[in-house]
Amino acid sequence: MPHFSFEYSANLDQQVDFKAMSAKILATALETGFFEIGAVRVRGVRCDVYTVADDMPENSFIDLSLRLGEGRSETDKKTIGDAIFAMLEEFLQPQLAAPHFALSFEIRVINSALSWKRNAIHPRLRNS
Amino acid sequence: MPHFSFEYSANLDQQVDFKAMSAKILATALETGFFEIGAVRVRGVRCDVYTVADDMPENSFIDLSLRLGEGRSETDKKTIGDAIFAMLEEFLQPQLAAPHFALSFEIRVINSALSWKRNAIHPRLRNS
Amino acid sequence: MPHFSFEYSANLDQQVDFKAMSAKILATALETGFFEIGAVRVRGVRCDVYTVADDMPENSFIDLSLRLGEGRSETDKKTIGDAIFAMLEEFLQPQLAAPHFALSFEIRVINSALSWKRNAIHPRLRNS
Repeated sequence: MPHFSFEYSANLDQQVDFKAMSAKILATALETGFFEIGAVRVRGVRCDVYTVADDMPENSFIDLSLRLGEGRSETDKKTIGDAIFAMLEEFLQPQLAAPHFALSFEIRVINSALSWKRNAIHPRLRNS
Repeated sequence: MPHFSFEYSANLDQQVDFKAMSAKILATALETGFFEIGAVRVRGVRCDVYTVADDMPENSFIDLSLRLGEGRSETDKKTIGDAIFAMLEEFLQPQLAAPHFALSFEIRVINSALSWKRNAIHPRLRNS
Repeated sequence: MPHFSFEYSANLDQQVDFKAMSAKILATALETGFFEIGAVRVRGVRCDVYTVADDMPENSFIDLSLRLGEGRSETDKKTIGDAIFAMLEEFLQPQLAAPHFALSFEIRVINSALSWKRNAIHPRLRNS
């Protein structure tokens, strides 16, 4: 935790640098001050099959989800979400400027009692 | 919102037209009368790694999820789900007729307080 | 149900046998005694775009989720989760031994009232 995972329509692959977007999401998450670097995982899944709205070939979407651990206030989660979404809106300005793109983002809390994890990255970064 | 997202075993790629299925899901969602066209996003993710039941090579699955906004009654969500699932059962008759296929569908409600979105498609379709 | 679905960073493809891991997850799920073989679906999604922690090229992750039906006690879900996670820790010992890997697992309960399914595999396996 936290896990950022996004799905996107394959037609965006030619116009969005998704690796750069992933790195920006991670950087923005760290800037909020709520996360430890060793814990952040960002990834994207390209969807080759999709139908968006009136199915024009230009239509596209990015849908991001963040799953994070319990124990943060609603205000803190809102602060985190606002920061991430503002960054995305800036990063995706060219897409949002054309009438074919839909962007969405949802935060979901992981139930600690039904969660298991082991992180071999933490010790390296905590000792450095 | 709404977001339809499905995962499927790669061995179905030769026998199911997933683009047609996506378009049908969108059309059926609109027919229920609960959604605005500009808001509907459907997509699928092909899973190249999978193990289903007794792992016969013919075994396959499709698992669909719908995430939608708050504020609809349980009855309305049931109506939406029934319509989508009935369509899938018809569309996937050949698969359901053989003893190797499992179909599933789940609806989940998005927590509005932890959701952000910006849709550049709406203005185009609302003005048309 | 149950649905096991995992996402993993593409750089693991050369070092982890994900098909073997899928089969192990299914076998371990059956060993717990809580599931019927015809119902178990395991699959993985390779993520080609990702940024993990300090973004060293070796950094990698596997994130597994299990969605299962209502009606099991918290203790039973914990037993299931413990068994699956212990197996993963053993299977992924080489990855966990290096300071670049993060493993996570979450169980989530499916809301029966908003779930639909049809399983054509059950009759074959129940009659056998």
